[in-house]
Amino acid sequence: MSVLAVDVGGTKLAVAVVDGTGKVVRAARAPTPSGPRADAETLWDALDRLVTSLLTGSPPEDGLDGVGIGCGGPMTWPDGEVSPLNIPGWRGFPLRARMAERFPDLPVRLHNDAVCMAVGEHWRGSGRNRRDMLGMVVSTGIGGGLVLDGRLVDGAAGNAGHIGHVVVEPDGPLCSCGGYGCLEAVASAPNLVRWALDNGWSGPARPGADGPTGHELVDDARRGHPVALRALRRAGGAIGIGIASASHLLDLETVAIGGGLSQAGPLLFEPLEESLRRHLTLSFARGVQVVPAALGQDAGLVGAAGLVLAGEAYWHAQ
Amino acid sequence: MSVLAVDVGGTKLAVAVVDGTGKVVRAARAPTPSGPRADAETLWDALDRLVTSLLTGSPPEDGLDGVGIGCGGPMTWPDGEVSPLNIPGWRGFPLRARMAERFPDLPVRLHNDAVCMAVGEHWRGSGRNRRDMLGMVVSTGIGGGLVLDGRLVDGAAGNAGHIGHVVVEPDGPLCSCGGYGCLEAVASAPNLVRWALDNGWSGPARPGADGPTGHELVDDARRGHPVALRALRRAGGAIGIGIASASHLLDLETVAIGGGLSQAGPLLFEPLEESLRRHLTLSFARGVQVVPAALGQDAGLVGAAGLVLAGEAYWHAQ
Repeated sequence: MSVLAVDVGGTKLAVAVVDGTGKVVRAARAPTPSGPRADAETLWDALDRLVTSLLTGSPPEDGLDGVGIGCGGPMTWPDGEVSPLNIPGWRGFPLRARMAERFPDLPVRLHNDAVCMAVGEHWRGSGRNRRDMLGMVVSTGIGGGLVLDGRLVDGAAGNAGHIGHVVVEPDGPLCSCGGYGCLEAVASAPNLVRWALDNGWSGPARPGADGPTGHELVDDARRGHPVALRALRRAGGAIGIGIASASHLLDLETVAIGGGLSQAGPLLFEPLEESLRRHLTLSFARGVQVVPAALGQDAGLVGAAGLVLAGEAYWHAQ
Repeated sequence: MSVLAVDVGGTKLAVAVVDGTGKVVRAARAPTPSGPRADAETLWDALDRLVTSLLTGSPPEDGLDGVGIGCGGPMTWPDGEVSPLNIPGWRGFPLRARMAERFPDLPVRLHNDAVCMAVGEHWRGSGRNRRDMLGMVVSTGIGGGLVLDGRLVDGAAGNAGHIGHVVVEPDGPLCSCGGYGCLEAVASAPNLVRWALDNGWSGPARPGADGPTGHELVDDARRGHPVALRALRRAGGAIGIGIASASHLLDLETVAIGGGLSQAGPLLFEPLEESLRRHLTLSFARGVQVVPAALGQDAGLVGAAGLVLAGEAYWHAQ
């Protein structure tokens, strides 16, 4: 068995051949076209060429058994018409249908990219052999996916897993979703950078460029910058509240955290654990393990493949 | 098909014969023994006698096909050793095993009472035909149960559904669970009464009796008492935050609210809806319907029966 896995992100497109054990056999990446010329067909052509380059020359021995796709939301699910927030050229783009035209004899399955990351971590990463897991991506946004009782939970319209919009500070900052005090409004990388700038951090001197990044904030925290450290404490505290709420509600065993900000290591995970100790108190929930994601950048590709290769656990579209 | 349904609460024991359609054919109730003499065997004898009185004289025509039990938590699940917070005489009491000795040829299934309420509402109440539902009980405590993708979610140890311990006010009051700002710490009936007393409400004059009740608080709110009204606004606001977090995380279609405090009607549901409008903002989630539970006091019995009569949806113990 092998599957074509596709991971569509705002900055890069990634494709891979993944074998039946979840191993990435080979992969290719390219920047996502951006700017005013990146219309719907330009984007599709870039993806199509990347797929062709991956498969040309050395096709998988037994051919392909299916295509799994992870893509940024929102989207209609399971139809797979996508309108990724950070890919303005695709609005209601029928990504699943186009890929099904490209591979007319194969099943083509598509889900949210953060859901695919969670599937990858559950299938082959740090959530392996656990029945109940939340997978989180903490990066430009905060997303996630849920495996409960050993099955991926889709929700009424395929949108389960939005841990980034659990309320962690009811009178907190306005979120891009229009709500107040969502986890993402507090702890996503851009919101954390903004908070740090408002509180006296200035980032590295880099004239003419864009503002400082979450990566630079983490670097400064490692060097002991007090505001950068406070920013990571703030993020860890908020993530801890979100995980406590989710764990009490869902009786989780494991939470796997990936995404750029998780690279901060103990500077993020220690305040996170402290917040958990304050808010995660019911005996059944105290044992939840919060761990870094294990698969790194491959999690989304492996999870997209899992939609096809382990469909009994991860694909329940009707 | 018919099933013996049992609902064990801190103040009353209820038993019923429930037919295959979820209808309560006949029922009996008795006070739960309390006080220093209510040891484990006294409690069991009271339940055993109530069951005997229900079944004596007019047994269900085709005999019984199983026994379903709802009981206050905590408990081990699915073993069913129960330690209900408000029944001190049972600590680690093997309720499921004792009932299995009493009915040696029948399947005996036990779950948390709030989970049974949610199952009842999903199977035969206001969540009928919905795939994704949260059932909540707002009363002395705040509990609940979750049906996602048409299946009851148990969680790692059978404890999924604890909506009462979702954090709604991170710096809020200490909760009985040891955490801070849980929904239950803000919005359960006793905590709401305490808040109202602290803020100038005094309850009805009733010398020598216990303090005022949630029921009396709701009565005074109906009469326009400003502090009682503020208390219900406070509860509705907090419940709205909890529901917003759960809906974003789980992509719910319906939330059914039962329990004593839900009797307050618009005085509770209007501020709840206002809070939802502030915090429930993602497009997929805005359509969630928050409705009063439909089955009233029978929900727990009907749900306990559903564990047996509709096991493909509601019973997944391994």
